Amino acid sequence: MKVLSFKYEGKTLFGPKVKREEAVWDILAIAAHYEEASFPQTIVEGIASGLDFVEKIRQLVDRAEQDALNDLKYSFTAIEWLSPIPRTPKNIICVGKNYVDHAAEMGDDAPPEKLMIFTKSPTAIAADEEDLPIHDELTTNLDYEGELAVVISKEGRNIPTQLAYDHIFGYTIANDITARDIQSAHKQFFLGKSLDGSCPMGPYVVTKDEIPNPNQLSIVTKVNDEVRQSSQTDKMIYKVEDIIAEVSRFVTLEPGDVILTGTPAGVGKGMNPPTFLKEGDTVKISVEGIGTLSNRFVKK
Amino acid sequence: MKVLSFKYEGKTLFGPKVKREEAVWDILAIAAHYEEASFPQTIVEGIASGLDFVEKIRQLVDRAEQDALNDLKYSFTAIEWLSPIPRTPKNIICVGKNYVDHAAEMGDDAPPEKLMIFTKSPTAIAADEEDLPIHDELTTNLDYEGELAVVISKEGRNIPTQLAYDHIFGYTIANDITARDIQSAHKQFFLGKSLDGSCPMGPYVVTKDEIPNPNQLSIVTKVNDEVRQSSQTDKMIYKVEDIIAEVSRFVTLEPGDVILTGTPAGVGKGMNPPTFLKEGDTVKISVEGIGTLSNRFVKK
Repeated sequence: MKVLSFKYEGKTLFGPKVKREEAVWDILAIAAHYEEASFPQTIVEGIASGLDFVEKIRQLVDRAEQDALNDLKYSFTAIEWLSPIPRTPKNIICVGKNYVDHAAEMGDDAPPEKLMIFTKSPTAIAADEEDLPIHDELTTNLDYEGELAVVISKEGRNIPTQLAYDHIFGYTIANDITARDIQSAHKQFFLGKSLDGSCPMGPYVVTKDEIPNPNQLSIVTKVNDEVRQSSQTDKMIYKVEDIIAEVSRFVTLEPGDVILTGTPAGVGKGMNPPTFLKEGDTVKISVEGIGTLSNRFVKK
Repeated sequence: MKVLSFKYEGKTLFGPKVKREEAVWDILAIAAHYEEASFPQTIVEGIASGLDFVEKIRQLVDRAEQDALNDLKYSFTAIEWLSPIPRTPKNIICVGKNYVDHAAEMGDDAPPEKLMIFTKSPTAIAADEEDLPIHDELTTNLDYEGELAVVISKEGRNIPTQLAYDHIFGYTIANDITARDIQSAHKQFFLGKSLDGSCPMGPYVVTKDEIPNPNQLSIVTKVNDEVRQSSQTDKMIYKVEDIIAEVSRFVTLEPGDVILTGTPAGVGKGMNPPTFLKEGDTVKISVEGIGTLSNRFVKK
């Protein structure tokens, strides 16, 4: 199931993509129609309510289809897209240098010996198709990083590798946009990674049942249709389950947390000469089985 | 006004300290008594509602005093203390190496040239008087950092230095507990700074009207009554208003955000030989005009 968050008539809503149609079910309206009073009112509440949340959505949508409640589905053209998780409960958790070739292009002799984790402010979250600020008043080095993102389903600390998938709700795509000059000048990565609009995610969260192995997905980033990154998640040093196990040794993970799993080689800083984003550029990131996240950069 | 958060009969509440008594007003119960239906239900909602929140509390408490609603105040011995902000809207924002003498004891020739910002997970937040895990399964280098903490009152980006105080709700005390071995092994500070219980804050948030100049407060940290840190916030490289201005150049600040302003010299790692926390140690941090934050470390 592909679940998306969106605005419709001013309200923040969420629901599953309609099968074989460019449309979304308004699951809150369906739940209200069938007087499901206890249905979660936000996607993060829903994720936190447990795994049968997906099954519950499926059952409600099946009923809505049988009863032909067609006015409770909205065409993609009628909605404003939001990040599938519009607001994470803590900062977005990000793995640094998780592909050998990306560590090399950043000038390192070798990847870090230990898992490197930094964070991005949730105020940086943006949506698929949203125009993002180029921030040329702050940086001349704005760069893209195409990444597979993991959405956490339930709280955990010290999660064993073998149980990591029990803590996953699904997957989406993220662009870990980075102001390289700010990142390096300020040493710790947080500021250069947290500009407004620097964490677009989407278009959907694809529930984990549809992605048998997140460590075997192609990932491609294009800038204005030129391929810049083309890799496979099997090149990740820390696999998805390793990241969850290792992060949760130290930090309590919660429902709705999002983990960005790192970017492969091909970022602008690694080019010769380094080539950063400019006004009017469009970055498209495609991850196999999930879709494409597309954003244009504009002066704001 | 000193505002605290607490649990009473299983409910998460907040309210102002009673004058000249070791007790707290249950402001939600007072608001309900006077049928103030729109009164904010959490402290972060209240802060977000604007500056007249403090005035509103004052008026309600004045009425409660006149009407002798004494069953709506609870003795400190009857409540479970919480961090004054029990949950921040994003990770706690922390300034690294903001005192020259602390940068020196950490082995640096000079403080960072640019403001260094890292974050702590909000799942690390703990209360005054709470027993904290020593985490000896993860670290042999657990260390304290006594700090002045600033609570943000309203949203802002690009806040000018001269307007920074308009964005402050008040001040509290924080212990930026750090696993030095994890901090250095993992390069970026987030993991070593985000263990459960590693961000005790409290006891109160003191509203800004009671602290005429946050850049001129004595700060003292004791471990088992031995003075380890004894400094003044006038030694901060970035003053409170500079931190707010500089952080908000990059990141949108929000009501309820907490900024830790950095620690002076005297941490355990800087001692000769380095001396880290052990089971049974109690760390007490006092900041002038605010109070004392006290925590004991235990095996959990």
